[in-house]
Amino acid sequence: MFSKRTDLAVEAREIWNESAEDTTKIKGVEADDYLRDGCNITKVRILDKDGEAALEKPVGTYITVEMTGISRHEPDAFKRIVAAVAAELKLLLPVDKGSALVAGLGNRYITPDAIGPLAVESVMVTRHLVDRMPDVFGTMRQVAAISPGVLGTTGMESAEVIRGVIDRAKPSMVIIVDALASRKLSRLCHTIQIADTGIVPGSGVGNARSALNKETLGVPVISIGVPTVVDAATMVSDLLESAGLQEVNPETIKDFSGGMIVTPKEIDTHVEEIARVIGYAINISLHPDLTIDDIASFLA
Amino acid sequence: MFSKRTDLAVEAREIWNESAEDTTKIKGVEADDYLRDGCNITKVRILDKDGEAALEKPVGTYITVEMTGISRHEPDAFKRIVAAVAAELKLLLPVDKGSALVAGLGNRYITPDAIGPLAVESVMVTRHLVDRMPDVFGTMRQVAAISPGVLGTTGMESAEVIRGVIDRAKPSMVIIVDALASRKLSRLCHTIQIADTGIVPGSGVGNARSALNKETLGVPVISIGVPTVVDAATMVSDLLESAGLQEVNPETIKDFSGGMIVTPKEIDTHVEEIARVIGYAINISLHPDLTIDDIASFLA
Amino acid sequence: MFSKRTDLAVEAREIWNESAEDTTKIKGVEADDYLRDGCNITKVRILDKDGEAALEKPVGTYITVEMTGISRHEPDAFKRIVAAVAAELKLLLPVDKGSALVAGLGNRYITPDAIGPLAVESVMVTRHLVDRMPDVFGTMRQVAAISPGVLGTTGMESAEVIRGVIDRAKPSMVIIVDALASRKLSRLCHTIQIADTGIVPGSGVGNARSALNKETLGVPVISIGVPTVVDAATMVSDLLESAGLQEVNPETIKDFSGGMIVTPKEIDTHVEEIARVIGYAINISLHPDLTIDDIASFLA
Amino acid sequence: MFSKRTDLAVEAREIWNESAEDTTKIKGVEADDYLRDGCNITKVRILDKDGEAALEKPVGTYITVEMTGISRHEPDAFKRIVAAVAAELKLLLPVDKGSALVAGLGNRYITPDAIGPLAVESVMVTRHLVDRMPDVFGTMRQVAAISPGVLGTTGMESAEVIRGVIDRAKPSMVIIVDALASRKLSRLCHTIQIADTGIVPGSGVGNARSALNKETLGVPVISIGVPTVVDAATMVSDLLESAGLQEVNPETIKDFSGGMIVTPKEIDTHVEEIARVIGYAINISLHPDLTIDDIASFLA
Repeated sequence: MFSKRTDLAVEAREIWNESAEDTTKIKGVEADDYLRDGCNITKVRILDKDGEAALEKPVGTYITVEMTGISRHEPDAFKRIVAAVAAELKLLLPVDKGSALVAGLGNRYITPDAIGPLAVESVMVTRHLVDRMPDVFGTMRQVAAISPGVLGTTGMESAEVIRGVIDRAKPSMVIIVDALASRKLSRLCHTIQIADTGIVPGSGVGNARSALNKETLGVPVISIGVPTVVDAATMVSDLLESAGLQEVNPETIKDFSGGMIVTPKEIDTHVEEIARVIGYAINISLHPDLTIDDIASFLA
Repeated sequence: MFSKRTDLAVEAREIWNESAEDTTKIKGVEADDYLRDGCNITKVRILDKDGEAALEKPVGTYITVEMTGISRHEPDAFKRIVAAVAAELKLLLPVDKGSALVAGLGNRYITPDAIGPLAVESVMVTRHLVDRMPDVFGTMRQVAAISPGVLGTTGMESAEVIRGVIDRAKPSMVIIVDALASRKLSRLCHTIQIADTGIVPGSGVGNARSALNKETLGVPVISIGVPTVVDAATMVSDLLESAGLQEVNPETIKDFSGGMIVTPKEIDTHVEEIARVIGYAINISLHPDLTIDDIASFLA
Repeated sequence: MFSKRTDLAVEAREIWNESAEDTTKIKGVEADDYLRDGCNITKVRILDKDGEAALEKPVGTYITVEMTGISRHEPDAFKRIVAAVAAELKLLLPVDKGSALVAGLGNRYITPDAIGPLAVESVMVTRHLVDRMPDVFGTMRQVAAISPGVLGTTGMESAEVIRGVIDRAKPSMVIIVDALASRKLSRLCHTIQIADTGIVPGSGVGNARSALNKETLGVPVISIGVPTVVDAATMVSDLLESAGLQEVNPETIKDFSGGMIVTPKEIDTHVEEIARVIGYAINISLHPDLTIDDIASFLA
Repeated sequence: MFSKRTDLAVEAREIWNESAEDTTKIKGVEADDYLRDGCNITKVRILDKDGEAALEKPVGTYITVEMTGISRHEPDAFKRIVAAVAAELKLLLPVDKGSALVAGLGNRYITPDAIGPLAVESVMVTRHLVDRMPDVFGTMRQVAAISPGVLGTTGMESAEVIRGVIDRAKPSMVIIVDALASRKLSRLCHTIQIADTGIVPGSGVGNARSALNKETLGVPVISIGVPTVVDAATMVSDLLESAGLQEVNPETIKDFSGGMIVTPKEIDTHVEEIARVIGYAINISLHPDLTIDDIASFLA
């Protein structure tokens, strides 16, 4: 029986495979691996109820981009990874040229949770420009952006705030950026998941709140998520299990109940860097004619 | 003929008086000065159309608190000024115990415009706690908070975002915090204006956007504003006029057209300090049983 | 044979005790527990070579203050804990009234490493005031402060920068604030260690650099350290050992080699809060006549 | 009689010319204008005592680069301006390949004063790498960097801290970055002055402290300064004078005595942008083989 929670479909598939005898096929799930711009891409498609039950995720497409090279500081890593993420993101965007709302979920002031609000700072906001300066910006796609904050600092679910904003801004689609939890340290700050199924904010860090998807928001929802933490208690129980210990003295792990996380020592730098990758990739997928230099000067 | 713009009613009254022969009485305007907790308070009431025309502000009550002592770093200045602002604010709050939404207007990343978003960080957000932990928080007033961002970074007017949020959170009242423009350097970072007439965001720094008041938001709107800048062009023209020069060579002042502001050198520190005063004063006016120490430990 | 590294003497003693048959006595080590201002205090004295060998720390006094209540947000926790830390710190300060240099070690932009630079922001800097305004400040102790940065951002060891500053400022003593590594999650952000033996910066996070102590700096050195992270690899090996697994498949723990840390989810908030406690405690120990309110208005 | 203070040699020359009958020649001063990479450059050479007396600056070379295009957000403005500044900076660097110390003067937490500390964050620090990894970095120039803080937060003059650091790091040259005061609004955040005469820190904002130059530091000192503020009192008196008012009622300008500055509304953004230009230009002048992309990946 499968019962391990993860935000990443690619990880759910691995866990399923670990627990299965036949590692190659999951009923209702299709998977595909390929290389784009030097990044390993895995595309997992959950096709039906069987696939949903196997991976505990809704029907839809989940693309994982490994940001190879970003930590080795190759000179062209930024451009290359932005190109890969933008190209994959474009596959999931609705085909029309409609307006978009980009929402950066999470708490700006808790580093591993700040990816969403920081990514929004690199998004080219054009909605008001198209409206007010049609001669100059009339041919651009209208993009609005919001960081709805978190329940603890606003008193409102992100979903409430975003629904309120959608009622006013009336976008054709919503792109959500959020931090995720992974079960594997090697994925932290190295992987981006893009999905067309929406998101349940906060589920990665402990509390499932109201969903953000086409059913609840009324427009297509594309989510972009990056694992930044592994829950320490989850990691420990995975680890003890992999070491062959099925029964652990509760005393051994009692310290882990207090909200401890495992995260890279350089998390502050990673979060800024990846947020910028995501912001630029969103810009290029929404405005395919622009170059990275164009975007840099728009944002300056 | 009176045509000088200012966000402060107390300043509009001064300007009117300067230009009038009779300095004591403006038709349709009542004014009152008193001392509370060591702070000079001026209350200006605009009573009717005559008052509106004279001061170019809508009918309502405008209270100005001079934060005497805050810049001299008296040991008890913080507590004293919070008490004064809270007491004046309470005079303008609706009497019922309904829920409140606090909105911090302005750009968090432009220092003199950051008072609103920073004040929100010192507001006790209780809406979700009252809902989810009624045994502990059931008797508290529900307070939500939002920093709606600015047009340039969200693509939406603050008013649009706040209306969207109100539709979802359904507060009984809105308290708005914003930075203002003054015409007098001596008022910068030393004065708080509280009004029951709402606000036209951004008007102080150049562009009037849609109003935030009872007509547009559907619930009572209390605004709290602090002048943090004097527009350099305004200052120069006031100055030259006061020096007796009615006609100035346009060449003399052409440099001032590019968005220059006059502000205290220590603006970063002032803005943090005053935002904290405002946050605490809001908390005490909404939860009169709490002390400053209670609030400090809630916010810690 | 004892070989587990920890920055905390109290923890070294625990580890020794765990591995020893007789848990009460370590040769060359004296320990004492008591309560002050509601905080549990443990004082470990390493008396001689035997004690040094047992706990792998130099001869000296190590005081651990548990900051009980700081995480429960008691109204008076801040004042109480500052009083406890200040009182213990005073026990280790040289008795004369000489000038002090406070050095905040660590990287301001890596959250769990930022305790030192942040604490320095709450230190009352008086050296220049005593010099220039002797009528007002002449009776105060002269205090200077520096955040020397880290090797990766300055190209210089903290010790080099501090020695250079000491040559110029000529303080009678140095107080060093730094983040530490612990082996126990329950100590993270809950414990302050004060010692009169100086410090080896960076040792807690992987690389031992040149020591900062009386021998290398030429004046008494008091160190104040707070554990903010547990090294993930250390934690995992401790955990597997406590679970009875002496031999672990290296494959199991290979992910942990990449600089992963375990830290509280709310580390950003904790670090700010504790840095403020330390800054205030330093101020009170150096200027015993001042109250917390006096310090707050000096720093405002 | 000439008595107007300015940090900029190019401005001193203008003021001299305004007050002189013959606007083309100042004895002991040579000046030259040219274009480089689309930027207007003015090079003022003070040759002797006569030039020193005329411009109230020490003998040496002062190069002013106008950062044309940076505010219009041209796509290639960053690269172009970095190239221009780097090329001019290289003209003043000592010819040998010796090690450098870059010092970022000013207060990181007062926006218009933060250019120095922010520029240092974009400097490639290599001193420790050359020492410890000679196989990889052995051919690079050794660069160290320090932000010495300001008197009010450290209790020490910048000059004291830097001298202490020089004693330890023993660089062959010092490059100092600092914010300046201008008399002309049009220069704010649009001009960079590079000089080989060192600097008197703080002189631009009111208090002259000890000089940083070859005499006091013992090695060549190159300074890079950017005007970010105009002192409000200076501006007003210049303005009234240019309007033909030689005698001003002191009452008119009494508000200006309290440390008011004139600065662009977008100062936060400008300061970050220019600091990055300066950091990159320093890197390219010290490591001429590197490209902007190389530097970006080193710093990532």
